[in-house]
Amino acid sequence: LKVCIIGLGLIGGSLGLALRAGRLTERIVGYDRNADDLALALERGAIDEVAADAAAAVRDADLVVLATPVLAVRGLLTTIAPHLALGAVVTDVASTKSQVLDWASLSLPKNVTFVGGHPMAGSEKSGMAAARPNLFRGAVYCVTPSQGASELAVQLVERLATGVGARPLRIDALAHDAAVAGISHVPFLAATALVRCTTHDPRWRTWSEIAATGYRDATRLASGDPAMYRDICLTNAAAVEPMLRELAAQLNEMADHLADPSYLDELFVDARDRRDAWMNGQARFRLP
Amino acid sequence: LKVCIIGLGLIGGSLGLALRAGRLTERIVGYDRNADDLALALERGAIDEVAADAAAAVRDADLVVLATPVLAVRGLLTTIAPHLALGAVVTDVASTKSQVLDWASLSLPKNVTFVGGHPMAGSEKSGMAAARPNLFRGAVYCVTPSQGASELAVQLVERLATGVGARPLRIDALAHDAAVAGISHVPFLAATALVRCTTHDPRWRTWSEIAATGYRDATRLASGDPAMYRDICLTNAAAVEPMLRELAAQLNEMADHLADPSYLDELFVDARDRRDAWMNGQARFRLP
Repeated sequence: LKVCIIGLGLIGGSLGLALRAGRLTERIVGYDRNADDLALALERGAIDEVAADAAAAVRDADLVVLATPVLAVRGLLTTIAPHLALGAVVTDVASTKSQVLDWASLSLPKNVTFVGGHPMAGSEKSGMAAARPNLFRGAVYCVTPSQGASELAVQLVERLATGVGARPLRIDALAHDAAVAGISHVPFLAATALVRCTTHDPRWRTWSEIAATGYRDATRLASGDPAMYRDICLTNAAAVEPMLRELAAQLNEMADHLADPSYLDELFVDARDRRDAWMNGQARFRLP
Repeated sequence: LKVCIIGLGLIGGSLGLALRAGRLTERIVGYDRNADDLALALERGAIDEVAADAAAAVRDADLVVLATPVLAVRGLLTTIAPHLALGAVVTDVASTKSQVLDWASLSLPKNVTFVGGHPMAGSEKSGMAAARPNLFRGAVYCVTPSQGASELAVQLVERLATGVGARPLRIDALAHDAAVAGISHVPFLAATALVRCTTHDPRWRTWSEIAATGYRDATRLASGDPAMYRDICLTNAAAVEPMLRELAAQLNEMADHLADPSYLDELFVDARDRRDAWMNGQARFRLP
């Protein structure tokens, strides 16, 4: 299997390292417009060969992985479309799927297949330097086929997922986008709002001395890559917006009931029990 | 030094274990209305002696530590007031300080001194079974003297803090309560609101399979002790309410700007940089 990875940051680089560790592929060709990431990818063995540009990178590939920020995927699809091999399968790793599938159906020729992908793994660090082969170990890897994608093409992307140690989960693009809005994008925005409200307060200097592990964990997502989350918001606003407003309404409802012990008891016990149930379900798998 | 600990849950039990490990005290007498926690505290060596009730527990103590949920402190102060030794110092570990200081000034006789305390350490687990001697290692320990407290009394509580491995920080009660509202209570409520909005969504079953470490960390605080947080809200509503509404307003403002790349860039870069600056400052100390 000849694989091409375009974008050798945290995700693309880790995919390359994991594929190599698993000896799944004959050859991995890579391209990144950032020359440092590209050189480091070659040096660390995430790729076997550096391509001169995106068009050259995809030329002989059976499987093309676009591992750039989501908004860059649009232009890349147009760039690579005329250069793809007959029957090639193209996938991505972007955090939102509906727009990517739309772009793919507009840009790609009929003789190649697009199957969206989204590994549910990451880090608040970014770049090839942060890549590691076990990043996907035990993680869910969402697979969102385009309309009319052949079963073989979908299975190739599922093999990529299992090949890097993840668990593929086939899911419709709209269902995926709603899910990640709820469990990832809105939590990021909540963490960012928490950081904004606290660090801009005139009393922050004192607060910063007292803040400890609770604050650290509650705000961890706010240290994520700003450009990635900007693109996420821009491409998933339809799912994110109503959930963000619902969260704000929930906070205002709480503010109305801070003197109501039975409201607080019911709310806090329910949330704890539901989160603990989820954590117990997760314990079967991973969570590093 | 004769110490009495009333309340042998996570915090009281860990204080006892840490004091014993540090050999700071001659003798620790303990009481908890939960017979299991009390027996386990004796068995694990968090206390040397079990008292029959709170009044008996404080009788000969130089330092009395009230380590119960904050609302229980009020009644306890009334209960122990007539039984305290002349010159005793009473402290607590509650998460809010203004109300506790008010209660102490109303309940305690003039010949004993109250000095509030709040170790900034915890866990989403609770009870004596979760207690451990290194819980406070490197943590900030807020010390809020009552009006007119002698320097010696304040220093005794600061010795308790350093004796369990923490770093005492003298702070006014109102400033403390605003700080913990911002860096602990509102983050807990945000985590709880996130759990509520996601786990009550009809699509949660799918979402729960995809949720990973980001969701886990963003919601970790929601697994905290519901009774403790209820009491926190009831006693710190004045500080919590405006911050909760500000957070909600911030989320609604974000919802208004999800299609505005320069707004998102500015917001996300600023929050990331400010959180990273805080994390780098923390790196000098602890954070297990």
